[in-house]
Amino acid sequence: MSKLAYLGPEGTFSEEALRALAPEAERLPCPNIGAALEAARRGEADGAVVPLENSLEGGITTTLDELAGGEPLLIAAELLLPVRFSLLARPGTELGHIKRVITHNAAHTQCRGFLARELPDAVVIAAASTAGAAQEVSLPGSPYDAAIAAAIAGEHYGLHEVAGGIGDRDDTVTRFVLVRRPGPLPEPTGADRTSLVVFLADDHPGALLEMLTEFAVRGVNLTRIESRPTGNGIGQYFFHFDFEGHVADARVGEAISGLHRVCTDVRFLGSYPRADGVAPQIRRGTADAEFAEAARWLAKVRSGDV
Amino acid sequence: MSKLAYLGPEGTFSEEALRALAPEAERLPCPNIGAALEAARRGEADGAVVPLENSLEGGITTTLDELAGGEPLLIAAELLLPVRFSLLARPGTELGHIKRVITHNAAHTQCRGFLARELPDAVVIAAASTAGAAQEVSLPGSPYDAAIAAAIAGEHYGLHEVAGGIGDRDDTVTRFVLVRRPGPLPEPTGADRTSLVVFLADDHPGALLEMLTEFAVRGVNLTRIESRPTGNGIGQYFFHFDFEGHVADARVGEAISGLHRVCTDVRFLGSYPRADGVAPQIRRGTADAEFAEAARWLAKVRSGDV
Amino acid sequence: MSKLAYLGPEGTFSEEALRALAPEAERLPCPNIGAALEAARRGEADGAVVPLENSLEGGITTTLDELAGGEPLLIAAELLLPVRFSLLARPGTELGHIKRVITHNAAHTQCRGFLARELPDAVVIAAASTAGAAQEVSLPGSPYDAAIAAAIAGEHYGLHEVAGGIGDRDDTVTRFVLVRRPGPLPEPTGADRTSLVVFLADDHPGALLEMLTEFAVRGVNLTRIESRPTGNGIGQYFFHFDFEGHVADARVGEAISGLHRVCTDVRFLGSYPRADGVAPQIRRGTADAEFAEAARWLAKVRSGDV
Amino acid sequence: MSKLAYLGPEGTFSEEALRALAPEAERLPCPNIGAALEAARRGEADGAVVPLENSLEGGITTTLDELAGGEPLLIAAELLLPVRFSLLARPGTELGHIKRVITHNAAHTQCRGFLARELPDAVVIAAASTAGAAQEVSLPGSPYDAAIAAAIAGEHYGLHEVAGGIGDRDDTVTRFVLVRRPGPLPEPTGADRTSLVVFLADDHPGALLEMLTEFAVRGVNLTRIESRPTGNGIGQYFFHFDFEGHVADARVGEAISGLHRVCTDVRFLGSYPRADGVAPQIRRGTADAEFAEAARWLAKVRSGDV
Repeated sequence: MSKLAYLGPEGTFSEEALRALAPEAERLPCPNIGAALEAARRGEADGAVVPLENSLEGGITTTLDELAGGEPLLIAAELLLPVRFSLLARPGTELGHIKRVITHNAAHTQCRGFLARELPDAVVIAAASTAGAAQEVSLPGSPYDAAIAAAIAGEHYGLHEVAGGIGDRDDTVTRFVLVRRPGPLPEPTGADRTSLVVFLADDHPGALLEMLTEFAVRGVNLTRIESRPTGNGIGQYFFHFDFEGHVADARVGEAISGLHRVCTDVRFLGSYPRADGVAPQIRRGTADAEFAEAARWLAKVRSGDV
Repeated sequence: MSKLAYLGPEGTFSEEALRALAPEAERLPCPNIGAALEAARRGEADGAVVPLENSLEGGITTTLDELAGGEPLLIAAELLLPVRFSLLARPGTELGHIKRVITHNAAHTQCRGFLARELPDAVVIAAASTAGAAQEVSLPGSPYDAAIAAAIAGEHYGLHEVAGGIGDRDDTVTRFVLVRRPGPLPEPTGADRTSLVVFLADDHPGALLEMLTEFAVRGVNLTRIESRPTGNGIGQYFFHFDFEGHVADARVGEAISGLHRVCTDVRFLGSYPRADGVAPQIRRGTADAEFAEAARWLAKVRSGDV
Repeated sequence: MSKLAYLGPEGTFSEEALRALAPEAERLPCPNIGAALEAARRGEADGAVVPLENSLEGGITTTLDELAGGEPLLIAAELLLPVRFSLLARPGTELGHIKRVITHNAAHTQCRGFLARELPDAVVIAAASTAGAAQEVSLPGSPYDAAIAAAIAGEHYGLHEVAGGIGDRDDTVTRFVLVRRPGPLPEPTGADRTSLVVFLADDHPGALLEMLTEFAVRGVNLTRIESRPTGNGIGQYFFHFDFEGHVADARVGEAISGLHRVCTDVRFLGSYPRADGVAPQIRRGTADAEFAEAARWLAKVRSGDV
Repeated sequence: MSKLAYLGPEGTFSEEALRALAPEAERLPCPNIGAALEAARRGEADGAVVPLENSLEGGITTTLDELAGGEPLLIAAELLLPVRFSLLARPGTELGHIKRVITHNAAHTQCRGFLARELPDAVVIAAASTAGAAQEVSLPGSPYDAAIAAAIAGEHYGLHEVAGGIGDRDDTVTRFVLVRRPGPLPEPTGADRTSLVVFLADDHPGALLEMLTEFAVRGVNLTRIESRPTGNGIGQYFFHFDFEGHVADARVGEAISGLHRVCTDVRFLGSYPRADGVAPQIRRGTADAEFAEAARWLAKVRSGDV
């Protein structure tokens, strides 16, 4: 895979994620997440690296909604990227001089403690991305004194790190995924995750319980559930699920086939190695060997050979 | 099928059931249910007709336990036989003369109202079967004045029907099954029943709930559940299940495969046409065509073609 | 409690159970289980001791059905009685002389191995109870050579124990219960059992699953479930449940109230100490203290004090 | 209620919602949602009107997270506000002259079709709120030609509506809630909604299924479920639930008491009339009268009066 789209400009956390996931790849910065995914869909890139969720902010709704519609894309890999914010300024700027700070809203939220403590009188202006904020600060005659962004953005735009690790929490993580056009899936590794979007057949009470039962009865453990509006009015939702295992696993295959049968639409988003390498605990009766044995038994029963 | 074992002697309800199920078959009367099933197992007969449950008395535990153990036998057909009792005596005997009545305990129970009303002073003696009671009455010098049995027993043993339809309820029904050694199953008819015996992996709280969920999640409706002791102490049970559908149905196959995976042992007892001809209501997403469609979808998903 | 009815005649296992449960009580033998229960209902006795289930034979259907209908009776105590069979004969009779054996069908079934091995040529005749069989053998001019019964029956009827412990299994147990007319319940002991009969509102698929969920969601563990026919045709059942805990326990009270709301009829059969003294594992969130705390919280929430 | 905080500046959809919910109230505009809720918490206002979810964008995460933490606030009323966007400019500006548009990101997303069709070459700049965007355009020497905002914002800031109803969908709705400090709840109306936040005791597989079962077994229908990160790492979530009924309803009270028992923490967010006036379908056995009857029955059972 040689060329990957991502949320630019250079210096975003997305770029950092892309470099970690595919160090050799050529990078195609895009103005927003939708554009990055479109580049992958149209073949302008061989894939895209986009954020899926953040441990503090939750699901990245643009990504969730873009993956649920449009031409299908499959997740091929994931990455957990620690989020570390720096206060970046033009060389020579000191902390005491900073009056106008520019950054993305999410970064603003996550650095509130630092700002209240160190820059109580500064005005904070919103930018479209943290890297874009750094770029703004780097422009000659910029009205902004400093940006909050990834350290990598400082390197890109020739800024100086006035302060580092300024987030209120030092354990914030963003989960990025590498998506590409449909094609052969990554091989099962024994520590995989599968992602799915499910549209209900109808929104009767208990529909969600039924879906969860399809997973539970086959011993498939959910790791994330997210409801998203269908757009057709308050109270109409579809669901994003992440769960343990690979679609090649028998229990996963049977569970999602069950969903496919009882739901209006199920969109498969991929099976891929877990970034944390955690292998699932497989409940008795749900391992591949047990499914295979049950299939042999059923074949005998159906032939009357009991 | 030319020769069938049944609970004798001639004149039992079992014989009546056998004649209805297989009018042409040669009949082999046996002293008890176990002997009839053994005759089928050993090949002395081509099958056996035995009672499985009665609408008033419940499950016939001898049959349930015999089918759960020993060499496997498969149910090939079922019959719902109305149970109609007659008071039978030697020709010339009048109601007023009857002092000693012989019958099977179950018949005694079901004719209590008649006995209290018409023969309040009669003594009732227990026999091994209703037909055996009739036979006793027919013997020269019999100490018994009358038998309660099926009318057919009167014909066999030359008795006169003093009173007919003497059961307290006139809608009592016994369900008989024709079993035979394993071999090709009856074809699905669209109105079938399947029978199963399940031994739990362990008797943890919730084990039964889990088993029922395996059925429910595939839309398979139970028609009978019966717990039976394993013999290993109070609180240790195994379960008999009857449910709608044929093992050739995809939803039934997947449900019993699920049981096979999570239980210690599942014994298949057969798929056969329902005597009442009632077709199941098939829940959305559980028809064979929907299973087939889901399998095609899964195959595509696994190949990465989404 | 001074006078208790039981299944007579003297020398039955029921008498043995009664003596163990209430050594001081006066004993009223009755011809059958129904009569013993009626004696308790009418006040001819202060209660009755009846068998409820046997580890080999399963539920005693007469008892189950009698307790489900008629005037209510409550279980006040239970006993697990080991079942030990003896071959009893008139003094002087030797094993080699025994040609005709009389016993109850259940005893016959449980001693099959001994009979086949030691008395292969003997004829076995059915009696209404094992003690009745012993009584028959004791009569002058009896046509029977020996009875299979409890050793206690031999003592009553002056018989000699030709052989003891002749059952095929030596761990068979019958569970007896002491029932009485409604009145104050036994105090909770921490190791109690509760019994219930439930009639479904309608026999829709999933009705049993719903009932089990009412128990499971409150962490109440079932120890026995038994389906019994309503008498209204094959496929119409009601259910006997035994489960851990006392109706005074919050989790049990809420669970059976839930059943009461969703079922046509729930008949409470009593809360009483478990004979085996096993205390339940109480799942997190289902102890009385947790119910009380939740009730306090709910009261505050309802008053708007959050 | 005389003074209510809301997301300002004047002219926001929040102001429109506040006017509809409480036409007489004094209005206190706040710079962001958190500030509006803080004003209510501290008593600077008698309550606050904030957006909870949007039919296109989904949950308003700031509101969800602010209500889940900090001093408790209770929802007292809700409103469904149709979202209608206008293109607003200084008087005299024509469509053909518009090169730089300022608006909130969500509005940008929702008007993409219009922008692509009518203003394909315009640059779109992000603002903190749609009303703030309108305010920007109204400033003398503004670098922006037009704002996308509510028509009400145009009135406030003296702008002209160049085009109205420019959203891609004309049925978009935002659900607003009026929250206030804890105190007596609104009376049940028969068509109420209750909101709750639940923190799991631990994040074991099946925890969500268990929570849903607490609702389902009491016949309480969910209308919204939203997972939010706890902040403690990917895979750690808490849940927002909306469901039918009032906490004064017996079935709702028992369901949330059940959650309180099995979860680490349950935060009640209020019971209030549904804006759409839809009354719940009450499943058999879950009406208040049935709970009351079951409680009477249980009291009798516990006293031994059966």
